[in-house]
Amino acid sequence: MSAKDRIAGVLSPVVTPFKADLSPDPERFVRQCRWLLSQDVGLAVFGTNSEANSLSTDEKVELLDRLVGAGVDAGRMMPGTGCCALTDSVRLTAHAMKLGCGGVLMLPPFYYKGVSDDGLFKNFAEVIERVGDRRLRIYLYHIPPVSQVAITLPLIERLLKAYPGIVAGAKDSSGDWNNTKAYLDNFAKQGFDVFPGSETFLLQGMRHGGVGCISVTANVNPGAIARLFATWQTADADAQQERLNEIRGIFAKYPMIPALKAAIAHYGGDASWATVRPPLVALTREQAASLVSELKARDFDMPALRG
Amino acid sequence: MSAKDRIAGVLSPVVTPFKADLSPDPERFVRQCRWLLSQDVGLAVFGTNSEANSLSTDEKVELLDRLVGAGVDAGRMMPGTGCCALTDSVRLTAHAMKLGCGGVLMLPPFYYKGVSDDGLFKNFAEVIERVGDRRLRIYLYHIPPVSQVAITLPLIERLLKAYPGIVAGAKDSSGDWNNTKAYLDNFAKQGFDVFPGSETFLLQGMRHGGVGCISVTANVNPGAIARLFATWQTADADAQQERLNEIRGIFAKYPMIPALKAAIAHYGGDASWATVRPPLVALTREQAASLVSELKARDFDMPALRG
Repeated sequence: MSAKDRIAGVLSPVVTPFKADLSPDPERFVRQCRWLLSQDVGLAVFGTNSEANSLSTDEKVELLDRLVGAGVDAGRMMPGTGCCALTDSVRLTAHAMKLGCGGVLMLPPFYYKGVSDDGLFKNFAEVIERVGDRRLRIYLYHIPPVSQVAITLPLIERLLKAYPGIVAGAKDSSGDWNNTKAYLDNFAKQGFDVFPGSETFLLQGMRHGGVGCISVTANVNPGAIARLFATWQTADADAQQERLNEIRGIFAKYPMIPALKAAIAHYGGDASWATVRPPLVALTREQAASLVSELKARDFDMPALRG
Repeated sequence: MSAKDRIAGVLSPVVTPFKADLSPDPERFVRQCRWLLSQDVGLAVFGTNSEANSLSTDEKVELLDRLVGAGVDAGRMMPGTGCCALTDSVRLTAHAMKLGCGGVLMLPPFYYKGVSDDGLFKNFAEVIERVGDRRLRIYLYHIPPVSQVAITLPLIERLLKAYPGIVAGAKDSSGDWNNTKAYLDNFAKQGFDVFPGSETFLLQGMRHGGVGCISVTANVNPGAIARLFATWQTADADAQQERLNEIRGIFAKYPMIPALKAAIAHYGGDASWATVRPPLVALTREQAASLVSELKARDFDMPALRG
């Protein structure tokens, strides 16, 4: 498979809308995914910022079916399919393949801490062997601040040797450029596609052989982030990057997932978007007002959302 | 409900046997549970040391059904039913209640770190409200070294006020006696039953108003731990405690879950018990031999297991 068949560019870990009874809301979910695609942003559904681990496997299967059933392009999807339980990871990954997803983003099993690379290798190898599909493209998900379980360089090396082509890349949400650079320096030439986990590293990543980014803020600022990806070799790239960082900085002052949802609720004129599942808590009225006022002060808008 | 109806004593987070294909082995599971009950040890199935988070919800439901179907007393069971996803926690807890389990042990949702007590309260409250069964007895599971999400004193206070009787106690696996003592000092008189998460605190716990312990080592040394619980007010209690600590100390030199399974495999003459699910890794042949030789040097045996 050539690099051309690979997912690249900007992806959003799509926030998951919930109804008042906290059940997932497939209609709003489909609408949000269509909007993101219209901004040229791909769909890393079931990421950390999707509250994916607050959903059961049945709920994820159902949401994925609803997306594909609504005609959303599965080739633009990189669902998160890495769970604590091997059997859940296998089930979700196989289902994503059946639907034709362009790739899957896999957390390591994250309950046990201090596990060995041997055990993690075995976990990913079992998923790959059991799914048994040459089209599978796995992106390893490194997010130690949350998962507390790391995707190390030796682990990547071993997986790449055992499953070249199938082990397709990584999302690095360490927030540590040195780690992203080590991934790039060691593996990019072998066709291992590295996505920084934040648009703050988009430009730096592209200049060092990265292929895009998968960023939470792409949920609310998709067009501008996609534009930097498309024009990163132009003269105003650094200015664009600075503006992206400014907007992200505002969201980062608040609990991130509730803040995204509050912004979507406000700019989309759809209050029910603010709902989160426990253990998360929605922004207070005051927090939401303060967020919007800060965004307005920087001339931020999401006009297309109301379209 | 009087304290007499409550689970007390020594419970084991029962290790889960797997077949060669890594699927759960219900027959060996039933046998192990029966053996533990014969040693007067209750069944905290689906604990950390059960590799419970490496099982899907479907697999847990099936194993619980098999236990009850085999006539194992559900009143002696305190299955772990706390998951990352609210819907999984509700489903498992409701199923445990349907089967008549004496209680459930609930982890907080453990993917997101740094969550608020408000969010954790909402999580437990939603489970309680949705299950909607006055017989429910929830034991909060505090194991910050693994879950990284704590059950704080203010959270317990708030839950006890909102759901007296239903919020029945806690397992404290912090390994920090000061925390166990704070649980006891603050809440034991309100009928909040505290189980230290290790038999090393069994005697100390009983002397301060505890009701037993839930300990990993009860998988391999059940009779001796249950004996200390039954005779903690006798003259040789301290000597018994010392001996328990000595045996635990040997297991603690190895990765704990694989070591338990290696010991059960050895003393039960049943090699397939050694199997673990990734991300865990079984002991090497050398580690297993060394474990057994250390245990033998201290005259440790598990004769009943072969009965």
